[in-house]
Amino acid sequence: MQNPVELILAKREGKTLSVEEISGFIKGFLEGRIADYQMSALLMAIYFKGLEPQEISGLTRAYIESGRSIAFGDENPVVDKHSTGGVGDKISLMLAPIAASLGLAVPMISGRGLGHTGGTLDKLESIPGFRTQYAPDEFQDLVQKHGLALVGQSDDLVPADRQIYALRDVTATVESPGLITASIMSKKIAEGAKYLVIDLKIGSGAFMPNLERARELAALLISTGASFGQKVRVVFSNMNSPLGLAVGNALEMVEAIEYLKGNPLRDTKILTSQLVALLLLEAGLAQTEEQAFRMIEEAVSSGKALDKLEEVIKAQGGDARVLEDYSLLGSSKVKLPIFADTSGYVQSIDSRAIGYALVRIKAGRMKVTDAIDYGAGALLIPKIGDRLEKGEAIGEIHANDAAKAEEVVSLVRSAYRIVPEPVEKEKLIFDIE
Amino acid sequence: MQNPVELILAKREGKTLSVEEISGFIKGFLEGRIADYQMSALLMAIYFKGLEPQEISGLTRAYIESGRSIAFGDENPVVDKHSTGGVGDKISLMLAPIAASLGLAVPMISGRGLGHTGGTLDKLESIPGFRTQYAPDEFQDLVQKHGLALVGQSDDLVPADRQIYALRDVTATVESPGLITASIMSKKIAEGAKYLVIDLKIGSGAFMPNLERARELAALLISTGASFGQKVRVVFSNMNSPLGLAVGNALEMVEAIEYLKGNPLRDTKILTSQLVALLLLEAGLAQTEEQAFRMIEEAVSSGKALDKLEEVIKAQGGDARVLEDYSLLGSSKVKLPIFADTSGYVQSIDSRAIGYALVRIKAGRMKVTDAIDYGAGALLIPKIGDRLEKGEAIGEIHANDAAKAEEVVSLVRSAYRIVPEPVEKEKLIFDIE
Repeated sequence: MQNPVELILAKREGKTLSVEEISGFIKGFLEGRIADYQMSALLMAIYFKGLEPQEISGLTRAYIESGRSIAFGDENPVVDKHSTGGVGDKISLMLAPIAASLGLAVPMISGRGLGHTGGTLDKLESIPGFRTQYAPDEFQDLVQKHGLALVGQSDDLVPADRQIYALRDVTATVESPGLITASIMSKKIAEGAKYLVIDLKIGSGAFMPNLERARELAALLISTGASFGQKVRVVFSNMNSPLGLAVGNALEMVEAIEYLKGNPLRDTKILTSQLVALLLLEAGLAQTEEQAFRMIEEAVSSGKALDKLEEVIKAQGGDARVLEDYSLLGSSKVKLPIFADTSGYVQSIDSRAIGYALVRIKAGRMKVTDAIDYGAGALLIPKIGDRLEKGEAIGEIHANDAAKAEEVVSLVRSAYRIVPEPVEKEKLIFDIE
Repeated sequence: MQNPVELILAKREGKTLSVEEISGFIKGFLEGRIADYQMSALLMAIYFKGLEPQEISGLTRAYIESGRSIAFGDENPVVDKHSTGGVGDKISLMLAPIAASLGLAVPMISGRGLGHTGGTLDKLESIPGFRTQYAPDEFQDLVQKHGLALVGQSDDLVPADRQIYALRDVTATVESPGLITASIMSKKIAEGAKYLVIDLKIGSGAFMPNLERARELAALLISTGASFGQKVRVVFSNMNSPLGLAVGNALEMVEAIEYLKGNPLRDTKILTSQLVALLLLEAGLAQTEEQAFRMIEEAVSSGKALDKLEEVIKAQGGDARVLEDYSLLGSSKVKLPIFADTSGYVQSIDSRAIGYALVRIKAGRMKVTDAIDYGAGALLIPKIGDRLEKGEAIGEIHANDAAKAEEVVSLVRSAYRIVPEPVEKEKLIFDIE
């Protein structure tokens, strides 16, 4: 293998590395021949100089080959969904049971919340007993038996990504489209999904500031998927308003269960249906979008999707009584209302600030090792463009720490910018690719 | 202190770090609270985003404060010279004794050769017994007693620079003007020099490709010196032709001794005199350049400079008989001539390639731990613009490994590009700042 310094230098000078050079570097790093300080220097050089599509494919392959891969048979189309992270984003909790109840196989590997964004894994763990750590074989068994498994990343799957992500996190090299693509796609390919939908969020509560930058990332995600025979569709969705009503683990779990009981909210329904419809169409289970939407409607109204959620909760050791008794998911001693202090229209919502404010009552976390209070969170009603009267409820804070809850009420209130003149409502889905 | 990730991020985004942030980062690194992978990520971000003059001063101060500093009294003006590295650059070996013989105090800390460039320390160590490692107190005593000491960097002086330089070397982050400036200037300030001349080399045998880039670095060197009360002058010199006649440790030592015996070569004389003259003028020992040049001429012709060299060799434990018996410096079993294979004019000389070729016979080294063969090297006669006849000697290779010497002859020959039409001779000094 080449001298690692020469490879760092080549990337620093903007040269394109060969697939062999990339895989040699990753292998050398995993085997301890290349030091972490050399890896972090390369990552920073990549941050500045980017990666070409073939380099991203090479990096994705090196990540995948660092661990085990799962290969499903040809029974049911294997699908998955990825979200780039938002505030109040519980879409996976509805999408996975709906898709599985319609004959799609969903080997869903989710992550934990960090910073202002929540994580599907934490929301699921608000269910007492729900187990999320499985070896690849067990995971595969679950999917084959139930059409669905909702788990965390095992140590055997793409270990290179996990190690390198940990390094990126402490060296300010996370925000690189090429590195983000390899990190997302390696997991989604190694888990065996053939069809993938990505909810690429844009706006105040998301990592992507605008549609242009999001399209660049989408192109990389799609081309990388294609180079591994995976079909990827991307939905560009609006993350300027928190999604749905609830933000916080148990509260979001309740909202998801209510959705599957036939009580969906407007925005979560639009997004969930669109994402599932794309999977049904790509997998050939529906011929038209209209047909797909009808199938999805029927999966919920018939109770099949809720049954699927119950099945998976039981299969993964969870207490399925949560479907009827929400208090089992986590409770909060304090419920404080948030009142609007002026009349007008919601011009903007600083969703990121809301996410960070809720970390104070442990609805989220700043470090992966921080503990979560499942019962803590917020219910937040208005969206951008909504009319509010002075003294009307914006929502409420649920917490177990009364003093911090007061702080959070004030922080969340000030995340809503209310102006006298009417404000246009925003689209939830900007575009689909 | 701030989170190191935030500081890396700030630099990545092109922000200017405060002096406190920089010193906190360096301190944290030295104390092991900031990991080397975070330091290397910061270094790469600095490579891309640069450092403002106040950041460079801050970094220089942090380097200096990581170790001991030397403060001389007011007896003699304390001066030093730094070269950015070249091929055949033995100027320090003449400059230091000349300057010391004229009443300047010269606490000279030199480095070792690496890659295509030689190092003053290696050349001095071709003198049997010559000791180069001294504690700061002993070093200061030598300078006070003899007006001169020629040593290597001690562990107590700017240890932060040494550690960070080692990291830069293996992470492709050497070539950053801000980092280069802090590295050079911290040593030159900590050693107590009040007046500094820098020989900033430009061309095929140097790190700087052109005068423009060299001027940018010079501005940083001068402003950083000024912020510590050190007066810095910069000579931009031509490194397209190897300097003088000899390249290789013992051979260069011989050339330096011959210079001080009154047999200087044209180019080394121009450069040495110019650098010493700037020091005499800045230190106030000469009023005009003409006077300075006369003083320098007299230091050599009187034998005072040679006496000073003898004095320092003895003071540092070296065998002063080398001044008469050059064979004591190192010998070579093989002397192979290099003949021109065509007639014409020297259009260009790939001095870097010559430096690397000579590493094969151990006149230089690729790693700091590689051994040096003091007797190995080359004598190289023509400069750019010189006329050569086919079969005329370009020079000769001195080596102890006959097989490798043959290779080197051929490599060195092909470093000379000979063309039929006349080529203009080049200036040795491009400019002075």
